[in-house]
Amino acid sequence: MKVINESLEFSTSGFSDMKDLTSGVSRILSQSRLENGIVTLFVPGSTGGVTTIEFEPGLQKDFPELMEKLIPQKKSYHHDATWGDDNGFSHLRASLIGPSLTIPFSHSRLTLGTWQQIVFVDFDNRSRSRTLTLQFMGE
Amino acid sequence: MKVINESLEFSTSGFSDMKDLTSGVSRILSQSRLENGIVTLFVPGSTGGVTTIEFEPGLQKDFPELMEKLIPQKKSYHHDATWGDDNGFSHLRASLIGPSLTIPFSHSRLTLGTWQQIVFVDFDNRSRSRTLTLQFMGE
Amino acid sequence: MKVINESLEFSTSGFSDMKDLTSGVSRILSQSRLENGIVTLFVPGSTGGVTTIEFEPGLQKDFPELMEKLIPQKKSYHHDATWGDDNGFSHLRASLIGPSLTIPFSHSRLTLGTWQQIVFVDFDNRSRSRTLTLQFMGE
Repeated sequence: MKVINESLEFSTSGFSDMKDLTSGVSRILSQSRLENGIVTLFVPGSTGGVTTIEFEPGLQKDFPELMEKLIPQKKSYHHDATWGDDNGFSHLRASLIGPSLTIPFSHSRLTLGTWQQIVFVDFDNRSRSRTLTLQFMGE
Repeated sequence: MKVINESLEFSTSGFSDMKDLTSGVSRILSQSRLENGIVTLFVPGSTGGVTTIEFEPGLQKDFPELMEKLIPQKKSYHHDATWGDDNGFSHLRASLIGPSLTIPFSHSRLTLGTWQQIVFVDFDNRSRSRTLTLQFMGE
Repeated sequence: MKVINESLEFSTSGFSDMKDLTSGVSRILSQSRLENGIVTLFVPGSTGGVTTIEFEPGLQKDFPELMEKLIPQKKSYHHDATWGDDNGFSHLRASLIGPSLTIPFSHSRLTLGTWQQIVFVDFDNRSRSRTLTLQFMGE
């Protein structure tokens, strides 16, 4: 059994920008030479989240629209009154979707479905450079 | 430390149909002879989710009604315009609830509460045969 | 590789009361002497959840208000008709946020962001004593 700490770096444009990280995670899994185990993806920050989705153009519009419906950007939040950075909506969306995703792999392949991709969603209100923590544990 | 790849197969009727998988997961844990570790449940698909709930008849109605309130089936989604399969709501519900659940076990027992059950929720718009990935890691 | 079962105990006041558990989890990680691995936090109950948030006074009001908007306390739920304990909203909020959170650590430190804290949210409708399951796995 081994533990391997890795990361992925990428740029995002904020406002529920979705990045498909599936090939990046798969590539690092191949390089690790691990066959069976889990990879834990973790967002080290409070304005981004990870989940899975069928990464096609329709859902890339639907998911941000859902976030806007559930947690509108323009509503007044206590966070904004405190800090003045106007991204209270970003923090709430991130806490709702969650910062962590654990995916098993077997025979050196992620156990994803055919039409299922790993996505990072940047909920912040500006473009950013992001680093996602990846930790592989297995044999 | 060992890694054991398993799965559970079952039929679902869609439209937020909830399946209690607690006894199935516990049975496979017993067969594994592992004592301490984690089990990762993962949905290999983009229209189902896993969480826990008190699996009683009232909440089996309340949870689907909540999904319908937050992400209505009949709303027009970009996904449906692209693919014509009318299950945009299914994909969004699945991304919101999430495809992965990690549960520790100790002394060969899942650390669930007394009134807490593991549920798979099928958000698709038709009946399906489902396979849930289970991976046990422990000693 | 080792597996270490631990727990955290604390009191909560219900109604989306949020507890910052970051220092408690970090302390137990230090005592474990593990350097690389994951900690899985798990709520053994069906009326609490775990996520991360920037734990500042504004968001400590915003998050409960979001829960009240998405899943109002005073709405009539089937669960309450069955059991009469009036906490249907608590169960639904817990299933939405989820009972499980997996966080990698490396060099004996949690991979959290600077402004990101681990929070337990008690969604029940009364004060309670809570025990959160922590399981460390690593080397």
